[in-house]
Amino acid sequence: MSVTDELLANNASYAENFTGPLPLPPAKGVAVVACMDARINVYGVLGLQEGEAHVIRNAGGVVTDDEIRSLAISQRLLGTREVILIHHTDCGMLTFTDQDFRDGIQQDTGIRPAWSAEAFPDLDADVRQSIARIKASPFIPHTDQVRGFVFDVATGKLTEVS
Amino acid sequence: MSVTDELLANNASYAENFTGPLPLPPAKGVAVVACMDARINVYGVLGLQEGEAHVIRNAGGVVTDDEIRSLAISQRLLGTREVILIHHTDCGMLTFTDQDFRDGIQQDTGIRPAWSAEAFPDLDADVRQSIARIKASPFIPHTDQVRGFVFDVATGKLTEVS
Repeated sequence: MSVTDELLANNASYAENFTGPLPLPPAKGVAVVACMDARINVYGVLGLQEGEAHVIRNAGGVVTDDEIRSLAISQRLLGTREVILIHHTDCGMLTFTDQDFRDGIQQDTGIRPAWSAEAFPDLDADVRQSIARIKASPFIPHTDQVRGFVFDVATGKLTEVS
Repeated sequence: MSVTDELLANNASYAENFTGPLPLPPAKGVAVVACMDARINVYGVLGLQEGEAHVIRNAGGVVTDDEIRSLAISQRLLGTREVILIHHTDCGMLTFTDQDFRDGIQQDTGIRPAWSAEAFPDLDADVRQSIARIKASPFIPHTDQVRGFVFDVATGKLTEVS
């Protein structure tokens, strides 16, 4: 039995107690951009309930064109107004460089990715850079409430990056 | 008080009962790619616990270069081997076209995005297309366990796309 099959069995239990559907637009008007890290349960960390917030996640919780695309859809079509960015301690992105990652792929496959791995050496600096990418985008209409945080995987606490 | 401040107050409660840190690599060796939709609590839907799976999310649950980047990091550096894709009923991406979305941005800002909005008219077809993008990528080493599902926002159930 694959892990996927095991998780599908969990879904049957979830559906038994499920009540829906909720409305499409996020009730709290907020979008979260967080790292994909397995230890960040965004609904738990922020006390979110189903239906309240868009949740965008990727390696690092960084902002590339695809996060700008998602945030543009979130704000322009579904009415969100605030953005919460979450990076975290002990992040894998602190452990390698773009150069090494792309060298490794090239060695294994013969092809070098055209994209950056978006690795970073400093958490706070990359939170600030991610906020700056959102604020610099012409496609995100509401940028007065964009705040960034570091989640501590040892304590469960968020600390704001100023 | 902003919604962000309200959610930060929730975080204080979460941290009170938090025990960590867990290991960095996902314990179940799986990565989930899901839509950002507010009604999909991925940890709930799949019965996941903190530390078990990477969670990647964006508008539509689609696969672009940024999801390939995240999956490449997930598999090459953090040992995941299975991928679960989740689209869902009543998705906003079914309600507009790329052309209309980019026309609207151009009208409002004077600038046309270089990226596609990745809107789609058919859920099952886009799940299949997303699986195909992963399997076609030279940068994802493990593609024998890539399965796609549609989450029903009325019932909470996942249905596999074959």
